[in-house]
Amino acid sequence: MTRYQRLATLLAQRIEQGLYQSGERLPSVRALSEEHCVSISTVQQAYHLLEEKQLITPQPRSGYFVTPRKAAPPMPAITRPAQRPVEITQWESVLELINGRLDRDNLQLGSGTPDVSSPTLKPLWKIISRIGQKQDLALLNYDNIYGYPPLREQVARLAIDSGCRLSADEVVITTGCHEALSVAIRAVCQPGDIVAVESPTFHGTMQILRGFGIRVIEIPTDSVTGISLEALELAFEQWPIKGIVVVPNCNNPLGFVMPDARKRALLTLAERFDAAIIEDDVYGELAYDYPRPITIKSLDVDGRVLLCSSFSKTLAPGLRVGWVAPGRYFDRVIHMKYIVTGSSAMQTQAAVAEFIRQGYYQPHLRRMRQQYQRNYDNFSCHVRHYFPCGICVTRPCGGFLIWIELPEAFDTVRLNRELHASNIQVAVGSLFSASGKYRNCLRLSYAMPFNPRTEQALATIAAAIESAMERCSLLPAAEPGTAQAVESRAGAKG
Amino acid sequence: MTRYQRLATLLAQRIEQGLYQSGERLPSVRALSEEHCVSISTVQQAYHLLEEKQLITPQPRSGYFVTPRKAAPPMPAITRPAQRPVEITQWESVLELINGRLDRDNLQLGSGTPDVSSPTLKPLWKIISRIGQKQDLALLNYDNIYGYPPLREQVARLAIDSGCRLSADEVVITTGCHEALSVAIRAVCQPGDIVAVESPTFHGTMQILRGFGIRVIEIPTDSVTGISLEALELAFEQWPIKGIVVVPNCNNPLGFVMPDARKRALLTLAERFDAAIIEDDVYGELAYDYPRPITIKSLDVDGRVLLCSSFSKTLAPGLRVGWVAPGRYFDRVIHMKYIVTGSSAMQTQAAVAEFIRQGYYQPHLRRMRQQYQRNYDNFSCHVRHYFPCGICVTRPCGGFLIWIELPEAFDTVRLNRELHASNIQVAVGSLFSASGKYRNCLRLSYAMPFNPRTEQALATIAAAIESAMERCSLLPAAEPGTAQAVESRAGAKG
Repeated sequence: MTRYQRLATLLAQRIEQGLYQSGERLPSVRALSEEHCVSISTVQQAYHLLEEKQLITPQPRSGYFVTPRKAAPPMPAITRPAQRPVEITQWESVLELINGRLDRDNLQLGSGTPDVSSPTLKPLWKIISRIGQKQDLALLNYDNIYGYPPLREQVARLAIDSGCRLSADEVVITTGCHEALSVAIRAVCQPGDIVAVESPTFHGTMQILRGFGIRVIEIPTDSVTGISLEALELAFEQWPIKGIVVVPNCNNPLGFVMPDARKRALLTLAERFDAAIIEDDVYGELAYDYPRPITIKSLDVDGRVLLCSSFSKTLAPGLRVGWVAPGRYFDRVIHMKYIVTGSSAMQTQAAVAEFIRQGYYQPHLRRMRQQYQRNYDNFSCHVRHYFPCGICVTRPCGGFLIWIELPEAFDTVRLNRELHASNIQVAVGSLFSASGKYRNCLRLSYAMPFNPRTEQALATIAAAIESAMERCSLLPAAEPGTAQAVESRAGAKG
Repeated sequence: MTRYQRLATLLAQRIEQGLYQSGERLPSVRALSEEHCVSISTVQQAYHLLEEKQLITPQPRSGYFVTPRKAAPPMPAITRPAQRPVEITQWESVLELINGRLDRDNLQLGSGTPDVSSPTLKPLWKIISRIGQKQDLALLNYDNIYGYPPLREQVARLAIDSGCRLSADEVVITTGCHEALSVAIRAVCQPGDIVAVESPTFHGTMQILRGFGIRVIEIPTDSVTGISLEALELAFEQWPIKGIVVVPNCNNPLGFVMPDARKRALLTLAERFDAAIIEDDVYGELAYDYPRPITIKSLDVDGRVLLCSSFSKTLAPGLRVGWVAPGRYFDRVIHMKYIVTGSSAMQTQAAVAEFIRQGYYQPHLRRMRQQYQRNYDNFSCHVRHYFPCGICVTRPCGGFLIWIELPEAFDTVRLNRELHASNIQVAVGSLFSASGKYRNCLRLSYAMPFNPRTEQALATIAAAIESAMERCSLLPAAEPGTAQAVESRAGAKG
């Protein structure tokens, strides 16, 4: 970070903390230059940066002022899903979301794709090129079913950061976290079983559960503290729950990191009712705070936690390199892996192992954490600027996903269809529930560096939301034709 | 092929066809040199080669003679498995076979691994290296769920050789043929359903069926004409069979290519009873006869055939690039693929697509077909030489797998354990049945170039078989201690 960027960050923090209040005049360039022992031009550059971010506004011949703005929107309240096991559907909507990736013209704010253009990924390409030159025949042969041994070792080492003491022998490499979750769920459950999930839950997990004929019970989940242990306990008392699928670190889609005490309490609950915990940690290494949060797996003493993760969010999803540390379910997981893919692609495993071994992984992670945090600042600042009042927005502790809750009656499926004309794709909230909830919610990704197109897209989304809210009388402003708009909306819903 | 190799092949054929009979004196070097218009040294080199292969024996001052040898062993008769659906087990034995690959000291005659050391594969490495240099960010991103478009196109083009008219849109790329089979089976069946399979059947297919809770009915299968249509029809009349899994081309493990008329009859039968056909064509391109045999898929008119294949046997299994052309089950297959892996590794898909596009695939295939056929000649010649009488051996039409049937009471599980001490691994026949059949059978691979170590291994296997047969009085020779040997064998079986 250059000097002026550091200064800008500091000033932005002061604004965020209220030291410089909305509408207040900022110190003169000269004063700041003296205070921070930097040149005049450094201060000017810092101010320009803040101006770009719309945090401050210049006024001719008066200096810079804190941009008058709305207060930060509130966080979503704890969710209240139906308290009974349900069948999962929604596949068509998930497929629509996935296929949205195919359209290069789309601005994909709905997808969970990371930014793979970082210069810290360059060494990975060099390693791939060197693999081509070295011609190690072992990389053309069938993989060991457990995974490429040097990669298993690196994964076990990385797990130390999350408080886990794993040996390489306890790690199974998979084709992405998707396969990890798939084999973990199948190792624990039979068709017809009941599994508890956070609500909202990642749509991929939902579809895996559906595909294996497993019913889910959605547990209310708080956007700061995570799954409600009280509701989970009640569910345990009422239903024969085989396992719990949770994303306790940098939750998808809510962004929270579950406090350690609650992680411990969740494990105790699982022990009491003898349920397995399938822990999806795929965003865990992208937590903004360092050191990274611990996993529930790190607290596990009797092997009931199946830790699933991958390099899809931290490095690149196209590598399809994931893993699972399945504890006592190791043998069943190996059998399930044999059944679904047999083994994983060797070259990408070798490339990732070498990337970590040569020390490129941690610097890359650091950079991505910073980038995503910076993107978040920009993104949330613009959401605050453009979006109407009366919405709730999460404050993610890591990763690159934000969850927006619109008024109860809002229909994001229709909004998404409208945005399609502007080549913008969002993830509609209903994908994240099996019981038809969250139709009034959106998940947006801020993985890509913030640029004018992103800003334009946020403005377009905000305008579409505002006009829909007006149509449905969700905003005070009323206009002729409201009744008709409401009617057409009801039609779209049916 | 050099001049002397061509001559040697010709002479070997004449010996095989009985033109030069067992023990007969061969033409003098000068006579052959004149007959074929080649130099004296070319004939001498050809004779040396045949001597190495033990097809001919030199006698001092008398010239070369055809090595006296046993007649070719008979082919196995049609199999007679139990005529009712059974549950599949055997996972532990499959795992043992897979893990045998991890021991580098082992001579792996049991594994279905191809030879990946051919110089015709070198361009693949160059392409991988160039992928590293080009740094196409799309290869780091999530794959299109249907697969990498240029690869889908190449696969559709290759399918023309098997008589299929597929468009790229009908092809779904998978993580190896294993995932192709897995998603195809799940697209057709629900847990508890019944599927008909050839008997013996590839153990991977068996485990996939088991993993999804599907029962199998094993249909008698002939080592020349394939699955018995008569037995299959009876089974259809008796049981609600949802689908049939077959390997009609270069069958694993029996090596047959099903005659076209029988392929047609099988499809008609499936149509009559409205069952799906899951066609595993993974060895189809390695048929020794050119042009390659047609697939059942090529005859399909109503989309009931799901054609599964991969580049694992033709190029390299470590790439994990397979595909399925699922016909009318397309949508279900996509859903199942999303559930098990989401998408496949991008770089290996791109590498394979480029390898085919640049025209390297067909020359590679030609070379591998020739190599495997040559290996087979060598291998079968030595099996004939070393193995005791009273065994049946298949004559594969392609691929690199041979199936050996020993007398009914023989126990290959015990034999495999004994061979472990000599670092030799074979695939025991019982892996290929769900109803406990084929304990007296072996599957051997001749993928690797024949060398003295292979010959030594065949001699060791033959000796172990012979001594076991003597112990169990399966051979005429009796010796003291036979009773004890039989007893200990019974113990091993229990």
